[in-house]
Amino acid sequence: MTDNNLENELRPAIAILGLGPMGQALAAAAIAGGHPTVVWNRTPDKARALVAQGAVLAPTAVDAVRAASITVACMIDYDAVRASVADVTDWPTCTLVNLSSGHAGEARAMAGWAAQRGIGYLDGAILTPATTIGTRAATILYSGPRSLFDRGRTLLETFGGTSIYLGDDVGTGAAYEMALLDLFTMAVGGLAHAFALAVAEGIELAAFARFAKGIGGLLPDMADRFADQLAAGRFPADVSSIASANSAVAHVSAAAAARGIDTAPLEAVQRIIGRAAAAGHGGDSYARLAQFLAKADHADA
Amino acid sequence: MTDNNLENELRPAIAILGLGPMGQALAAAAIAGGHPTVVWNRTPDKARALVAQGAVLAPTAVDAVRAASITVACMIDYDAVRASVADVTDWPTCTLVNLSSGHAGEARAMAGWAAQRGIGYLDGAILTPATTIGTRAATILYSGPRSLFDRGRTLLETFGGTSIYLGDDVGTGAAYEMALLDLFTMAVGGLAHAFALAVAEGIELAAFARFAKGIGGLLPDMADRFADQLAAGRFPADVSSIASANSAVAHVSAAAAARGIDTAPLEAVQRIIGRAAAAGHGGDSYARLAQFLAKADHADA
Ligand SMILES: NC(=O)c1ccc[n+]([C@@H]2O[C@H](COP(=O)([O-])OP(=O)(O)OC[C@H]3O[C@@H](n4cnc5c(N)ncnc54)[C@H](OP(=O)(O)O)[C@@H]3O)[C@@H](O)[C@H]2O)c1
Ligand SMILES: NC(=O)c1ccc[n+]([C@@H]2O[C@H](COP(=O)([O-])OP(=O)(O)OC[C@H]3O[C@@H](n4cnc5c(N)ncnc54)[C@H](OP(=O)(O)O)[C@@H]3O)[C@@H](O)[C@H]2O)c1
Repeated sequence: MTDNNLENELRPAIAILGLGPMGQALAAAAIAGGHPTVVWNRTPDKARALVAQGAVLAPTAVDAVRAASITVACMIDYDAVRASVADVTDWPTCTLVNLSSGHAGEARAMAGWAAQRGIGYLDGAILTPATTIGTRAATILYSGPRSLFDRGRTLLETFGGTSIYLGDDVGTGAAYEMALLDLFTMAVGGLAHAFALAVAEGIELAAFARFAKGIGGLLPDMADRFADQLAAGRFPADVSSIASANSAVAHVSAAAAARGIDTAPLEAVQRIIGRAAAAGHGGDSYARLAQFLAKADHADA
Repeated sequence: MTDNNLENELRPAIAILGLGPMGQALAAAAIAGGHPTVVWNRTPDKARALVAQGAVLAPTAVDAVRAASITVACMIDYDAVRASVADVTDWPTCTLVNLSSGHAGEARAMAGWAAQRGIGYLDGAILTPATTIGTRAATILYSGPRSLFDRGRTLLETFGGTSIYLGDDVGTGAAYEMALLDLFTMAVGGLAHAFALAVAEGIELAAFARFAKGIGGLLPDMADRFADQLAAGRFPADVSSIASANSAVAHVSAAAAARGIDTAPLEAVQRIIGRAAAAGHGGDSYARLAQFLAKADHADA
């Protein structure tokens, strides 16, 4: 214990604000990494297990921030973070790392808010589940001033896995996170929709899952093709064209409708495909679809 | 040539009706497999390359069917097939294999139509692109009378890869195909939406693609979990709950809206998530979502 305490004194203290599943995982990793760890949560109950592991529960967010050289906030959104630290007038070491989810505009607004208060602000985006924190599987993106990332690095690396610094535009990490969550949300929606249809058709679900995996295997190549073609501005259809997607989505919508299944998700995708086809891009690859999502395009919708 | 002709005489003749990209690939594979191949298409021009390879172009669908012991139709939909063979009154060998896309109900209706005419009917679903036909990568599902599959097998296997017989319910192959196309369509829509957001945010597309591949890697486990949990009727949330999906989709919708990007696909998924959450399943895993897609559930939408 004495050795440990001595060692801990050499390590910077960290404050974790927000103790949902992710905040708890971050705090547990900081404790496991030997950092003096101060925690705070709107609902203090959630600190119990962490206190047993060695964390100090601060009575207010102000106390937590004052006790640490770096503050990591991880709450449901940016508004919750701002509300929680509104009373903090003096930020002793002036570093706030916000790992809450939000979009690039929110990250930039928060950086402005922090600048007005003389707080050094680093924005982060956690790409992997709470269960990965403290393990090699964690991936966290950071953006904002390079000096803040370098200074906080050792501490931030106790969260495990891969820490990626994306540059000084504070919105970049959030932008990546949102675009990835977008794809993930649509994939979850697609799985739910496809399984609803499979259940309605009475097909064997385990066998269906085996085929469904094959679709996951197509994503890597498709993602590369989207990136390459959008960067080049050329959309040659190699195997599959927008016209074939148009006919496929019509078949699937009919199948879902025949089974009384909500066709709204498919129809939303169908409208994108329809807009691209109507603009004369039926012979192009799927990547062209990404150009038919601006709001101006779908005044017709 | 003489040897070849002799050999060919021992092989059953096949008729291919419909010469879109897929019909052409099927015909080319049959020719390469040494089968006497008769082709027909509404627009006869498309037979040119196949005739050069050794196919015989039939002037009418009736002629094509009469010349072969098995007829494979592959057109844009079931209606096109029925329209094309409406004039055939005598099916000499009485086997029609329909590889056109459609849903289970259409396959069953077509089987009824065929039965009235004394035609043996096998329904099929091609799960892989035209470019895979004749290679190991092809996967084709068949359903209908076992005897017809067994009789046609050698010939059907010239289409390459894996031929899977799913049983005598003629709609099963179509049901699998539709559920898989459903997932695929949503994944393509998700890629398009995510890349539109990535472009709007000005993030580096090649780097984004690298992260996006990770999402593809999550699909296999998720598909298994959907199958297992839906079969068991229990939905424990391991890592991710419907409540967290609810908050994720809200973040992404806000990100898309802030960039003027069509939020309709996300909103359609959000309504499914919202219905499941409102029914008290916020703590359940994503697989529960598949139960909130029946039309009756979304009278509120
Ligand atoms: N969990 C994951 O696997 C995961 C993965 C990647 C990213 N993330 C992101 O990490 C962040 C935290 O996620 P989470 O899973 O821990 O749970 P969450 O439900 O997103 O957030 C819960 C936390 O937010 C706090 N909070 C909510 N509203 C508040 C308010 N008005 N004022 C103060 N605090 C408020 C909660 O405090 P109370 O306890 O008092 O309610 C709790 O500490 C989110 O932005 C999430 O998107 C999570
Ligand atoms: N291409 C692929 O990679 C792929 C993969 C899996 C499954 N499939 C399925 O295979 C089937 C065929 O696909 P495809 O790619 O070859 O092209 P397609 O565009 O789906 O179908 C084109 C074929 O349908 C014919 N056709 C359309 N309307 C017709 C009508 N009213 N009467 C007669 N013929 C009509 C066309 O004749 P004309 O030439 O005269 O227009 C042509 O032969 C589709 O159901 C598709 O979903 C295709």
